[in-house]
Amino acid sequence: MSLLVVGSTAFDTVETPHGKAEDCLGGSSTYFCLAAQLFTPTRLVSVVGEDFPAQHRSMLADRGIDLGGLETKPGKTFRWHGRYSSDMNSRDTIDVQLNTFGDFRPKVPAAFQATPFVFLANGSPSTQASVLDQCERPKFCVADTMDLWIEHEREGLAALMQRIDGLIVNDSEVKQLTGKSNLIQAGRAVLELGPKLVIVKKGEHGCFVFSNFFHYALPAYPTEAVVDPTGAGDSFAGGFMGYLATCDSVSVWNLKRAVAYGTVTASLTVEGFGVEAIARADRQQVERRFHELQQFVAGA
Amino acid sequence: MSLLVVGSTAFDTVETPHGKAEDCLGGSSTYFCLAAQLFTPTRLVSVVGEDFPAQHRSMLADRGIDLGGLETKPGKTFRWHGRYSSDMNSRDTIDVQLNTFGDFRPKVPAAFQATPFVFLANGSPSTQASVLDQCERPKFCVADTMDLWIEHEREGLAALMQRIDGLIVNDSEVKQLTGKSNLIQAGRAVLELGPKLVIVKKGEHGCFVFSNFFHYALPAYPTEAVVDPTGAGDSFAGGFMGYLATCDSVSVWNLKRAVAYGTVTASLTVEGFGVEAIARADRQQVERRFHELQQFVAGA
Repeated sequence: MSLLVVGSTAFDTVETPHGKAEDCLGGSSTYFCLAAQLFTPTRLVSVVGEDFPAQHRSMLADRGIDLGGLETKPGKTFRWHGRYSSDMNSRDTIDVQLNTFGDFRPKVPAAFQATPFVFLANGSPSTQASVLDQCERPKFCVADTMDLWIEHEREGLAALMQRIDGLIVNDSEVKQLTGKSNLIQAGRAVLELGPKLVIVKKGEHGCFVFSNFFHYALPAYPTEAVVDPTGAGDSFAGGFMGYLATCDSVSVWNLKRAVAYGTVTASLTVEGFGVEAIARADRQQVERRFHELQQFVAGA
Repeated sequence: MSLLVVGSTAFDTVETPHGKAEDCLGGSSTYFCLAAQLFTPTRLVSVVGEDFPAQHRSMLADRGIDLGGLETKPGKTFRWHGRYSSDMNSRDTIDVQLNTFGDFRPKVPAAFQATPFVFLANGSPSTQASVLDQCERPKFCVADTMDLWIEHEREGLAALMQRIDGLIVNDSEVKQLTGKSNLIQAGRAVLELGPKLVIVKKGEHGCFVFSNFFHYALPAYPTEAVVDPTGAGDSFAGGFMGYLATCDSVSVWNLKRAVAYGTVTASLTVEGFGVEAIARADRQQVERRFHELQQFVAGA
């Protein structure tokens, strides 16, 4: 089944201990699409400025990503500049220029409105809610969020959480959202706020999945070649939602496999600057890592 | 088969967000023994002062721990006072009084010298080596170490690593030991220093196991009730070695199960101050958690 993502498209300048890359193609929806298209046709709703080059458009379109919702507005594309710490476990934002993304009002094209799988990439809860207002009751809708909205738009976020099936957050966000420092307690507490499914991303430590029916922990794929962690979370979401959209039901079995596929697409992304590595990946490489990951965690 | 541990016995004063406990029974070998005896007869070599009460001795002996190597010396027992951060992921040492442990020269009683499974709890590499000098080629010997020895006794540690089968360290120690910030690279690098097996403990994030023949990742048991993390690592080692000593071979299968049992005994320890919770545990509780852990990580 098809999959819709609504989020940012950006030019990123990234500094890591492995070097610096300027004006790479980035943004949450770009990472998401490039991971998701490895599994299923993906529809994009985002915004860029007049500086967004045709080569990026064709790179995305060539991979079967439907750009019918990629709006071009007067002005420039969103720009972000970040610098990672020496162990790449934290980063500082050096510069942000929201540009055309600053007043992004997503318009979901008529042809996209009945998409069964929907991912709301990080954005204000009111923007995320406006997407749902335009959609015809998706079969499975998952949202991302961040510290800014948890702190300043808690009410909007609470309302959104009543309307989504799943929430994907990182470990510090889930602690902030629930006020609980124990991750297991925090994950369970989110279930009481609305979503049936909560995925807590822990970077190099993998992720936890919480639902009322099962809990699941999966370590990260054991990559030795982390070059740039940017986009890992959105690529995780892309692999997760992309695989799930190919399944005939959202069962525990399929959810666990989807989490493993998301773990794999995230591992591919971090091995190159920007979208370089994930854009190069193919399904065969994904399957190989999926099986390696199964081996890595196979119990006795 | 029987199991020998050589390490410290202490009185700990511990402050965590859940309260303060004074002069609890602690020390690496105590935590190790109490976890290991859930699986196999365990022999202790350690030292205490004249202030060590009979009630602690009988608590240990009642659990089948052989105190034939517990030396009593004039003076006081080792004392440690620590305070944990609010998320309990870091701690400050407030006070240390080495007392009788300060010049601990372990003497392995004749009856213990042919013990097939040996655990060298944290201590100086020369002290650890002196234990091996007294043992008759153990079947399987594992050591712990810490930042102090990695920094100041690197040569002694390098020599020790040629004589042991396995090393158990935490994530910051393995990075320090190898100079590699990527945990997968770091774990593999230790294998080149001698041990056939390296276990990297990551606290609430579980552990990695590295060997030349397999890599394995296991998340922590999902406890919601962490009261005091002291002794988690030694209890992990105790459960790991204790289970392994009951197996007829050190196979991949048995190693993975042993890592899961170590994860379980660590999870029991952290649910009480000092040794309170692990001393109360029984094998039935261990088996229940072992199966819960298997469920938690069961893939699709």
